[in-house]
Amino acid sequence: MPKDLQEMRQRVYEANIALPAHGLVKFTWGNVSEVCRELGRIVIKPSGVDYEKLSPENMVVTDLDGNVVEGDLNPSSDLATHVALYKAWPNVHAVVHTHSTEAVGWAQAGRDIPFYGTTHADYFYGPVPCARSLTAEEVNSAYEKETGSVIIEEFERRGIDPVAVPGIVVRNHGPFTWGKNPAQAVYHSVVLEEVARMNRYTEQINPRVEPAPSYIMDKHYLRKHGPNAYYGQKGDEH
Amino acid sequence: MPKDLQEMRQRVYEANIALPAHGLVKFTWGNVSEVCRELGRIVIKPSGVDYEKLSPENMVVTDLDGNVVEGDLNPSSDLATHVALYKAWPNVHAVVHTHSTEAVGWAQAGRDIPFYGTTHADYFYGPVPCARSLTAEEVNSAYEKETGSVIIEEFERRGIDPVAVPGIVVRNHGPFTWGKNPAQAVYHSVVLEEVARMNRYTEQINPRVEPAPSYIMDKHYLRKHGPNAYYGQKGDEH
Amino acid sequence: MPKDLQEMRQRVYEANIALPAHGLVKFTWGNVSEVCRELGRIVIKPSGVDYEKLSPENMVVTDLDGNVVEGDLNPSSDLATHVALYKAWPNVHAVVHTHSTEAVGWAQAGRDIPFYGTTHADYFYGPVPCARSLTAEEVNSAYEKETGSVIIEEFERRGIDPVAVPGIVVRNHGPFTWGKNPAQAVYHSVVLEEVARMNRYTEQINPRVEPAPSYIMDKHYLRKHGPNAYYGQKGDEH
Amino acid sequence: MPKDLQEMRQRVYEANIALPAHGLVKFTWGNVSEVCRELGRIVIKPSGVDYEKLSPENMVVTDLDGNVVEGDLNPSSDLATHVALYKAWPNVHAVVHTHSTEAVGWAQAGRDIPFYGTTHADYFYGPVPCARSLTAEEVNSAYEKETGSVIIEEFERRGIDPVAVPGIVVRNHGPFTWGKNPAQAVYHSVVLEEVARMNRYTEQINPRVEPAPSYIMDKHYLRKHGPNAYYGQKGDEH
Repeated sequence: MPKDLQEMRQRVYEANIALPAHGLVKFTWGNVSEVCRELGRIVIKPSGVDYEKLSPENMVVTDLDGNVVEGDLNPSSDLATHVALYKAWPNVHAVVHTHSTEAVGWAQAGRDIPFYGTTHADYFYGPVPCARSLTAEEVNSAYEKETGSVIIEEFERRGIDPVAVPGIVVRNHGPFTWGKNPAQAVYHSVVLEEVARMNRYTEQINPRVEPAPSYIMDKHYLRKHGPNAYYGQKGDEH
Repeated sequence: MPKDLQEMRQRVYEANIALPAHGLVKFTWGNVSEVCRELGRIVIKPSGVDYEKLSPENMVVTDLDGNVVEGDLNPSSDLATHVALYKAWPNVHAVVHTHSTEAVGWAQAGRDIPFYGTTHADYFYGPVPCARSLTAEEVNSAYEKETGSVIIEEFERRGIDPVAVPGIVVRNHGPFTWGKNPAQAVYHSVVLEEVARMNRYTEQINPRVEPAPSYIMDKHYLRKHGPNAYYGQKGDEH
Repeated sequence: MPKDLQEMRQRVYEANIALPAHGLVKFTWGNVSEVCRELGRIVIKPSGVDYEKLSPENMVVTDLDGNVVEGDLNPSSDLATHVALYKAWPNVHAVVHTHSTEAVGWAQAGRDIPFYGTTHADYFYGPVPCARSLTAEEVNSAYEKETGSVIIEEFERRGIDPVAVPGIVVRNHGPFTWGKNPAQAVYHSVVLEEVARMNRYTEQINPRVEPAPSYIMDKHYLRKHGPNAYYGQKGDEH
Repeated sequence: MPKDLQEMRQRVYEANIALPAHGLVKFTWGNVSEVCRELGRIVIKPSGVDYEKLSPENMVVTDLDGNVVEGDLNPSSDLATHVALYKAWPNVHAVVHTHSTEAVGWAQAGRDIPFYGTTHADYFYGPVPCARSLTAEEVNSAYEKETGSVIIEEFERRGIDPVAVPGIVVRNHGPFTWGKNPAQAVYHSVVLEEVARMNRYTEQINPRVEPAPSYIMDKHYLRKHGPNAYYGQKGDEH
């Protein structure tokens, strides 16, 4: 069933203003979008507009190729990355990009975020990958679109499902997360930032730490996700 | 004298909402319970419910085996851990579990939190133990109950009294604390998180630091606890 | 066209009180000024006055040599540094000095802040330099003026444009940033502090990290600055 | 001229509640006192009372030996440390003790806080000393009084003036600061915590960092203190 466009605007607006409320963005350094493939529409934050000036009405509406169809403002300059992810991943319905401090730490360090404990496993079924830096050719041709391609390539190369691992850090850049709706995509950004912080502390306290056992990952992830989930209340979405 | 169940609901509710107020939990990542053995009742937070939607009325009431006797909501998925601790330790009346960042750092690092100073000794009479990870068999049989067993085993193996050391970190997971009532159990979670932070800084500033002398631990702990305590006001509970 | 002096007072006042709001200063440890070369005036914070007592009216007005022409209060003791920068750099119109924690960390460590990622490149076109400590002679002759000279010398020695790299850390002291107006100079202080923090984390996570590729710097800086900028909205200043 | 006792109560009360406002204490983990030698009185926080329940009226008044002369509550258990400092140092009029996180990090690490930059030199004319741990004999005889003795011994041994270096960290314990009045003593606690944090970052960024040149210390300290001070406004106390 196609979504209601006005409700999409509202959800995307609320998810965008949740970013500074969660301490994930300074100034205009983040953006959230949602797609409705049946309607053929993407709703995304406008570019470079202060968060306090955002409203459901000034969200930008584009088609599935990122051409603006409603709104006078330019869409987020990262729109082409969002479009690429939506085209590649039919089960992803919302995307978030931020420069949150701890996740950027791992992105700039060029490292995957290892699996060290249950906080991680509750939401990410495996290490959070660090995608390679773009090449000079990619940067200078279609930078934002190629950022999406590099993310997709990383998931394909490793054979991982973006629904099970709903986020990545792009080397020398920062984190992207996604989900089934804007609120869940933001939730994953909060988890990613917190796990990035926990893992920095963990390696500081024990520089020779090893990843946690995989059966703990299985247990915690499947306690919250899938047909046998038992966390939360009956009728909750998992 | 048995407790009043309505007052238990109120105390457990207040202790649960104190967790985000103290910066110890994000989203729904924590839970507090209280037991009354005379009444045969445990009161605990419902599972996966936002903190702002909690009330004394929607706390879940169970018997001493964790069977729900009042309330329409599922209890916290960690209930079986709380039950195990209450069965093993008659002097423990309230339990808290969180994923607080600094304590998780030590849990993921797989290290005891050493005794480095008086802040620690005021509340924990010895290092805060790190319990081993659960085995695959434990995880796959009765995960939450076995988490309790591993905690109890650690205290027995070391011969320490859970009243004198009111907390632990479970490897690859996170902290549990307890106390004579929900407020004190939360207090111990705050102390554990702060000591975990202080000790991370301490080892960063001096990687070759040694534990503090044990006579300082004796003095500070016994200044606040036991028959010769002289901290605070006459009539204060210690 | 010369500026309106009352509007300068207002802008300088607002920029000064933005410093504690952004967590960049404690007590009175920061100052912002603006210059109008056509009017022959500099407006700067008074020295050692609590932020809550500041108002547009008690900002101090000086001539281009830093002689007070309006106001009963002493100007910031760092005025001579601001004057030196304004004399050397005609494209700089506002200056900020703080003791913000992360930037001071790099200043005290005596290191440039390396280019590790896109957050940095969006605002600073190259590493943020660390200027040398002043000599005993410089400190004991005209300390604040010589602080300005050392900053200018560093930019000249390296052949970098202060508009493209709008900030520096002075060894054993702290950060200075600048911009085309007080709000932008404060913005650059916020970015500098955040990048300093990100880079501390980055080196902690990967002690052998290398600077990011220069073509990423080119892309991100020029996406926001210069004739081909496409970030933000049409008509935005870049 | 002797002070007014009611004004002392008010100042001590305000200084005590400033500690949690500055993020320096959790729960009841701090205390401030003021002495008036002409009146023969010390005013100090009561022991173990929540900060929100403090008032000028429930501050405890003692004589110069620490015997309670007004008030029904027990004085802070650290009173004997304050008394010892007042007896030894006639130019110290107020004392603060906290367990602030960063300063405790250095205390637990057993290290002086080095002089790395101007933020430090503006308030502390030399490294902040770390006093030795107390011996078992000292701890078990008159613990709080001996804590004072160890602090005094450290200043005497090094030949430093407590007015020029208004603070210390006691090994395995935490910081004490002092000043000419309660507000200044609290100010010094804030500076100590901030410098402790800056210096932790500094050594992390450059593990081989050396102390800053002493002529920078002279300049910054004397810019704010003594007959030739020129920071702030005419008539300000320095």
